[in-house]
Amino acid sequence: MPTQDDIRAAAERIAPHIRRTPVITIPPSETGLENPLVLKLEQLQVTGSFKPRGAFNRMLSAKVPPAGVVAASGGNHGLAVAHAAKVLKVRAEIFVPEITPEAKRARIAATGATLTVGGAAYDEARRASEARAAETGALLVHAYDQEEVLAGQGTVAMEFEADAPDLTHVAVAAGGGGLYGGMASWYRDRATLVIVEPEECPTLFLAGMMKQPVDVPSGGIAADSLGAKRAGALAFAIMMDHGGRCVMLQDDAIRDAQRWLWNRLRVVAEPGGATALAAVLSGSFAAPKGARIGVVVCGANCDPGSVTA
Amino acid sequence: MPTQDDIRAAAERIAPHIRRTPVITIPPSETGLENPLVLKLEQLQVTGSFKPRGAFNRMLSAKVPPAGVVAASGGNHGLAVAHAAKVLKVRAEIFVPEITPEAKRARIAATGATLTVGGAAYDEARRASEARAAETGALLVHAYDQEEVLAGQGTVAMEFEADAPDLTHVAVAAGGGGLYGGMASWYRDRATLVIVEPEECPTLFLAGMMKQPVDVPSGGIAADSLGAKRAGALAFAIMMDHGGRCVMLQDDAIRDAQRWLWNRLRVVAEPGGATALAAVLSGSFAAPKGARIGVVVCGANCDPGSVTA
Repeated sequence: MPTQDDIRAAAERIAPHIRRTPVITIPPSETGLENPLVLKLEQLQVTGSFKPRGAFNRMLSAKVPPAGVVAASGGNHGLAVAHAAKVLKVRAEIFVPEITPEAKRARIAATGATLTVGGAAYDEARRASEARAAETGALLVHAYDQEEVLAGQGTVAMEFEADAPDLTHVAVAAGGGGLYGGMASWYRDRATLVIVEPEECPTLFLAGMMKQPVDVPSGGIAADSLGAKRAGALAFAIMMDHGGRCVMLQDDAIRDAQRWLWNRLRVVAEPGGATALAAVLSGSFAAPKGARIGVVVCGANCDPGSVTA
Repeated sequence: MPTQDDIRAAAERIAPHIRRTPVITIPPSETGLENPLVLKLEQLQVTGSFKPRGAFNRMLSAKVPPAGVVAASGGNHGLAVAHAAKVLKVRAEIFVPEITPEAKRARIAATGATLTVGGAAYDEARRASEARAAETGALLVHAYDQEEVLAGQGTVAMEFEADAPDLTHVAVAAGGGGLYGGMASWYRDRATLVIVEPEECPTLFLAGMMKQPVDVPSGGIAADSLGAKRAGALAFAIMMDHGGRCVMLQDDAIRDAQRWLWNRLRVVAEPGGATALAAVLSGSFAAPKGARIGVVVCGANCDPGSVTA
């Protein structure tokens, strides 16, 4: 797992390309929690999700060959890599599955990257991307299972702790576990990471139960951002070493959190971006007495009108 | 005009009911400006606009009679007063004109306030509200032309200066001038306020030209938040004493700023909420060399899908 120094180095490396996203504090009267809730508004990040942190760190840590970079993604990571490739003036080929929504496809294509749509879900796109990288010699930028990607995502935690130093619990949504793994690498034992997954994409939950990453079904409304087929090896190892709590949710709770964000805060979040908050608002994460909870709102690459649907 | 101490007192008075809204910094590469642009995301405020700052300050500074409070509004101020009345457990009657969009009417009605819709534009609602207050003895909470309202809105500037102390220019949208007047009362001569108005609602611009507030036509896409019939006497006096720059914009520039906020930042703003930014992005405000610009994004009470229309 990345060290704090790795994460600090990543922060320095990616700083010219990344926004320092703000936090906002919501009082107990609005949430029913014991203490104020602190939200990190990472959906305000460049490209609309946290993903460019890891993508830039991976691409700035390696020598990118003439063939450029290749990535597979439900959409957010692909957009981040495509954006980074444009900024760094290298070629990019992005593979996404058929479930990737038009809002994400269009933004990827608009960067000038080569976009290939194929396969039912993320895993098929992942296999296509790996075959393509082997064929061309391009640098593979993995959506979650590379040290440099984790170190980049860990900068979310570095900023969050600086802005809200007294949190006891930090809730993050997980697909392959890149954001969780990076943030746990930063926090170590200073806060408990709450790993939130839709019941229809239970990668880390089932990996924990089975004591190893296993293939799981992936579906539901957040599958385009949290629909990895199995937990990353790095995130799994971190979870086994550092504990952390897994919480699972039904899609209705995620929709409710999207609506809450709009109605209470005028924040638009895609389903995966509202998933961590849903665990807190729905009570699925039963906070222990005295908990001071932080939540990362991590993506907004959706049709904005969808949040009131 | 309110003093800095008035504004500090207002901040203390309203603190239990108001969010400290965050800022985010956008680098020159994304704006074409000479220096980073700092946005204060005041649309994240309770009720989706800055208005509860002034409403709570007015209502907490006075003894509210049994008849409660009365307000007229294009929608945002009415929602703020209705919300404050609910929190403070007093009656509220809100008057809005026919141009007030459904998104605002529904939120006002949901507070339990009595909502009366009538008249073509804000000024008719204002007259109805004043007649009603005279009839019932309710406390009138003016949308912009009361000292306590200005002091409340001035807390936006107090926070903004704390978070971004080196700004030379701060752009704010103006209707009656409550936000401008309050913020200018805080900043005095430490930053130049840039007063931004749609060409179709030029209250302060024409007041400046005519050396007195005059009735102006109000129309266009931002009329439901910036469509006062004339500048407030307080804001006008502050503008004449402290200078400030008036910038006028066409509605197209406002729409472009709404789209920019969504596409670049995943922020939803209503037309009036994006108006100040529009002056900066469109070049209508020609910043002098060395300017360090701040902008208040001040409202998001719209259909979220409308920002991509």
